Amino acid sequence: MRDDSCIFCKLANGDIPTNTVYEDENFRVILDLSPATKGHALILPKNHYKNLYELPEETAADVMKLAKKMAVMMTEKLHADGFNLVQNNNEVAGQTVFHFHLHLIPRYNGDGQNINWVPGNPSAEELAEIKDILTK
Amino acid sequence: MRDDSCIFCKLANGDIPTNTVYEDENFRVILDLSPATKGHALILPKNHYKNLYELPEETAADVMKLAKKMAVMMTEKLHADGFNLVQNNNEVAGQTVFHFHLHLIPRYNGDGQNINWVPGNPSAEELAEIKDILTK
Repeated sequence: MRDDSCIFCKLANGDIPTNTVYEDENFRVILDLSPATKGHALILPKNHYKNLYELPEETAADVMKLAKKMAVMMTEKLHADGFNLVQNNNEVAGQTVFHFHLHLIPRYNGDGQNINWVPGNPSAEELAEIKDILTK
Repeated sequence: MRDDSCIFCKLANGDIPTNTVYEDENFRVILDLSPATKGHALILPKNHYKNLYELPEETAADVMKLAKKMAVMMTEKLHADGFNLVQNNNEVAGQTVFHFHLHLIPRYNGDGQNINWVPGNPSAEELAEIKDILTK
């Protein structure tokens, strides 16, 4: 379940030193080396899954339980004011390492970050068309 | 478990019409009215939880199982090229409605969005300090 050419497999399994802030049998949480904010960390499964599409359902469930636990702990210990979870799949979405990871980003008043998008303004008809595509 | 003053409680429970693309006993998935991209949707629990901090562990698990399922289905049906999950907690993190929701954002080559942050460049000592705060 490991990919020997994958750097995140090596980090997740301890072959390369990391700033590990949590570890269990299936996951390691490490500090991001280019953090958005103080404490920005990544949840890495120890097994290799390229992205959310490949992640087994039970692993997905465990990731979010861990994210919740980490968000509570990190917010308290770092005195953060809020928290973002971000998870990117494929290059177009900003994924740069092709081993599933979830970004844990503590937020602080005045931290200067703006993790957001440009909002669209579709018509009711356009939205109804998309709904039809997704529900038929 | 509902908050009568919460607009997302009304949307999640069908009191206000929505473009619903998925529904089960505990969740509704609706199209965002100001979408980043075609198909941008929100996973809403039917019960009221303000944010990730308040979300029960089992609900967190179910949210991510559903997110994975939706990402696969939406990517296929909409011919998307990638996918972002974004979940914001508290105003500083961009949360505008205080009922937990997870953004499902299909991504397309050339869609003009850039959901990202300005990367920092902390020293090894600074990272080690943060690790110490989080692990002691």
